[in-house]
Amino acid sequence: MKRGKFYGIGVGPGDPELITLKAVKILQKVDVVIAPISKKESIAQKIAQPHINGEILNLKFPMVKDSNVLESFWDKNAERIKELLLEGKDVAFITIGDPMIYSTYIYILERLRGFDMETIPGIPSFCAAAAKLNIPIATGSESFVVVPTAEPEVIEDILGNFDNVVLMKVSKDFDLISKKLDEGGFSAGFVSRCCQDNEKISYNLQELKEDKIDYLSLIIGKKVKK
Amino acid sequence: MKRGKFYGIGVGPGDPELITLKAVKILQKVDVVIAPISKKESIAQKIAQPHINGEILNLKFPMVKDSNVLESFWDKNAERIKELLLEGKDVAFITIGDPMIYSTYIYILERLRGFDMETIPGIPSFCAAAAKLNIPIATGSESFVVVPTAEPEVIEDILGNFDNVVLMKVSKDFDLISKKLDEGGFSAGFVSRCCQDNEKISYNLQELKEDKIDYLSLIIGKKVKK
Repeated sequence: MKRGKFYGIGVGPGDPELITLKAVKILQKVDVVIAPISKKESIAQKIAQPHINGEILNLKFPMVKDSNVLESFWDKNAERIKELLLEGKDVAFITIGDPMIYSTYIYILERLRGFDMETIPGIPSFCAAAAKLNIPIATGSESFVVVPTAEPEVIEDILGNFDNVVLMKVSKDFDLISKKLDEGGFSAGFVSRCCQDNEKISYNLQELKEDKIDYLSLIIGKKVKK
Repeated sequence: MKRGKFYGIGVGPGDPELITLKAVKILQKVDVVIAPISKKESIAQKIAQPHINGEILNLKFPMVKDSNVLESFWDKNAERIKELLLEGKDVAFITIGDPMIYSTYIYILERLRGFDMETIPGIPSFCAAAAKLNIPIATGSESFVVVPTAEPEVIEDILGNFDNVVLMKVSKDFDLISKKLDEGGFSAGFVSRCCQDNEKISYNLQELKEDKIDYLSLIIGKKVKK
């Protein structure tokens, strides 16, 4: 039997309108859409839902740190997808943001090498955050760095070497990160829960100090030019 | 009279289907769409065209290095857009890729502060390239760096400090950049003219050495894990 095709689809940062025409077209035509879930509802599924005509299969990807546990889930879920592809079904794995940047899809992709596959890019969260803030990420010949889990020791070095930084998951050491940005001569824009109902934006990290910072928060920092 | 609203719209990397639903919706409703042109036809315009109901205005942004010349064009073009907004017209400025990453839109945005404005993110070229290559940009807690004009001296330092790099506009020093990646222990994927008719992809920089490398070429480099 002819094997099915595997698609990885980025559905964008969370706004249902920030999905591409191509993602919609593929969601409409595949036999099975895989929506990964951890504990909570799948945001990717909520965005994709109106476009899905086939079956939806929720596969569990727990949010744990133990790499053995993680790998066993990646293996098991990849096996389940292989079965579907071998049955001749076209399968799409959906992911929030872009599939090639910090997504669970990457671990599945690596396990399905050899199958016919196509990845459909999506809008990364940091592009959506920059757009919301109207703060450019980088211009001209300036490089930029994206740091997925901002730790104060790591970013100190980065702030010394780059003028444009995207710091993700800043909740844990928020006060210290703010301080480093300030000392380094950076202006900063802050977005949490970008494109979702409880989105929050700020241009002044000082005013956030008393707040509980959400886990899904990022900062776009720019060295102030003298 | 009520002022018009200004939109900056990313139309994605070049594939007409990699535009978002939101971009399409806004293109359909605005009075004027600004399509920047240099010498050649506007790729952004080609992508947006089927969705535009209003007027299309081509504004010239020359590809020159003289910053005085550039700034005079940015000023003049921003003034023209201001006139339209003051006439009450809603105006959308289209740009290839994402508007907040290395786009001409950024210079216009800075000149229109104070007007009602909204930026609509688009798929950056490097996300589309990673998807084409099926090479992840970054996973887990690894940072990544985007270098817009890869110069051998600059990237040597970056390759020593990061495991994931996106090197854009690699045509000028292609052989030297390949060599540095190789010496640094990086595997590399290459895409030129991503999502366009004459797109080219390669997983082996050596095989490209005899070729003329297109100006719109990028490399996704990943440190090989031992």
